[in-house]
Amino acid sequence: MPIQKSKVTIFDVAKASGVSSSAVSYALNGKSGVSDVTRDKVLKVAHELGWKPNGAAQALAKAKTQRVGLALGYDPKLLSVESYMMELISGLGAELEKYDYSLLVRMAVGEDAKLSIIDDWIATGNVDAMLLVNVELGDPCVALLEEHEEMPVLAIADASVVGNLPSLSSADADAVRRAVRYLYDLGHRQIARVGGPESLAHSYIRDSAFADVASELGMRYRCLHTDYTPETGREATKRLLAFSEHPTAIIYDNDVMALAGLGVAASQGIKVPEEISIMSWDDSLMCTAAYPNLTAMGRDVVDTGKQAAGLLLKLIGGERVGHLMEGPYELRARASTGPAPAAE
Amino acid sequence: MPIQKSKVTIFDVAKASGVSSSAVSYALNGKSGVSDVTRDKVLKVAHELGWKPNGAAQALAKAKTQRVGLALGYDPKLLSVESYMMELISGLGAELEKYDYSLLVRMAVGEDAKLSIIDDWIATGNVDAMLLVNVELGDPCVALLEEHEEMPVLAIADASVVGNLPSLSSADADAVRRAVRYLYDLGHRQIARVGGPESLAHSYIRDSAFADVASELGMRYRCLHTDYTPETGREATKRLLAFSEHPTAIIYDNDVMALAGLGVAASQGIKVPEEISIMSWDDSLMCTAAYPNLTAMGRDVVDTGKQAAGLLLKLIGGERVGHLMEGPYELRARASTGPAPAAE
Repeated sequence: MPIQKSKVTIFDVAKASGVSSSAVSYALNGKSGVSDVTRDKVLKVAHELGWKPNGAAQALAKAKTQRVGLALGYDPKLLSVESYMMELISGLGAELEKYDYSLLVRMAVGEDAKLSIIDDWIATGNVDAMLLVNVELGDPCVALLEEHEEMPVLAIADASVVGNLPSLSSADADAVRRAVRYLYDLGHRQIARVGGPESLAHSYIRDSAFADVASELGMRYRCLHTDYTPETGREATKRLLAFSEHPTAIIYDNDVMALAGLGVAASQGIKVPEEISIMSWDDSLMCTAAYPNLTAMGRDVVDTGKQAAGLLLKLIGGERVGHLMEGPYELRARASTGPAPAAE
Repeated sequence: MPIQKSKVTIFDVAKASGVSSSAVSYALNGKSGVSDVTRDKVLKVAHELGWKPNGAAQALAKAKTQRVGLALGYDPKLLSVESYMMELISGLGAELEKYDYSLLVRMAVGEDAKLSIIDDWIATGNVDAMLLVNVELGDPCVALLEEHEEMPVLAIADASVVGNLPSLSSADADAVRRAVRYLYDLGHRQIARVGGPESLAHSYIRDSAFADVASELGMRYRCLHTDYTPETGREATKRLLAFSEHPTAIIYDNDVMALAGLGVAASQGIKVPEEISIMSWDDSLMCTAAYPNLTAMGRDVVDTGKQAAGLLLKLIGGERVGHLMEGPYELRARASTGPAPAAE
């Protein structure tokens, strides 16, 4: 069964031009160590084969294992409710595939397990680079990886919590500010946020931005924390609605909690959005399945995965990567938000 | 930073008893090729170290890469809406971790990409075994793997579509029968099923079981197919409700479509469960976040992942595995189902 490969690697160029892959690497990267005649031949062949110069292809020259490591915290229920990780893996894997790279996944079960896996990868060189996700405040994984510059790593986290590690962060603070301002413009003056676990760095970033912008706008606000499950989202919503002057709008940190919030409103006969506006975060398919459809801050996580793959390949290729930020979130206004109810 | 390993491998036993790992393997597996003196010594050391004999540990003896391959179809939106895959990966990874195994994930982008990845793994021996998921009717991946007995593979699919490959299947037919009977016992006599893509083997299995049991019980039934998204779930629901004598109960093939079904009912002012019962499948956290809470057929997919890992390690160790079935689904009755409305 013939299987065609569509991508051109430096190995293909080497084969077609009859020189070693390191000679091809030297020639294509403009380094010395190869004669002008060979360089010309390699460039001609590379052009004919349609080889494209970029950091990712350059990485191939230095690759040892053709694998990128991803250690995931073992929390099956949380992993399953958050579509984030599967979308990230999809984008990451799809982009890595173009460069014959695979994703090596290990589940970190128990305390310090993630640290142990990282330690193992540093010791064995079983992966060419690592992706660090779900970074916590003061995360020991960051310190360990800072000590081992030989292991290229990209942290998917805010620059403020990753030390010297290269990072790709989501535009969370900006998104929180825009979400709050959107509700303010609809007339809301009492607002609440139902956030994720306080230990997570991005919860802290969002909390701070939320408090800042609400204060700036002169709004009254509350911020509660959960473990991301529907149960804790429901409890938080009930607590917020129990206040005599309850918020007229709630922003949730994920979709399943916003869905639970809709349920609390329905069960208490509170109309959405006439009496309370509900806003979600992440915008998985759940938001357009819910009734009313949930307004959400969404972003293209698959694209983040692809971007992360490109950065990892650059790092493997020896390029420097600093602190980068994803594109902005998109505010997707739907039926669950509306003008604030008139004050009584 | 000292990292402790808790599991005892045959390599640990070899080191402690001062013999080769193959001698340990012979001794522990009761094979010839090792003297009685050595066998006794190995067994004593193995006992002292707490080594446990099982298929998984035996697999270590034959392991080459310590990796299990998983090729996923690239369909980011579908992957993200289905918590199934992330739960499976969690269980799989957690169990593999105990035996120093990792999961090598590749995304199959485009037609024949999955076949190409499998072909590559067979050719390179880059993984010790493979997991085959989302098997389609007449899947060419099955044929390719049947030709290559040297690559251990476990198909997560019904025995009827995997040829000679070892398989672990979900108890779908049984679950469909129980779901229909549950609704029948509530008095429903007109029932519908909103299924997934017709090309998937498990859609076919569920369709057949649904038609069979509904016929046996003398119920009127309809079966529609979707691509698993809320949009198609919503369209199917609208079509079903447009019939003059519409079904009084609908069983959906996943949670997000059942949620969309709840939304259609709410938007048309049809009360759930008083006027229509809605039943879901998979039982992700969405079901207990929705209002009313969704009755669902649920199962422990994380556990399936663990079971699959154990079977893969057995296969790597040279053991034979036939066609196995997961434990039964659990019918989790909640507020979205109730007695059929009285006939007019």
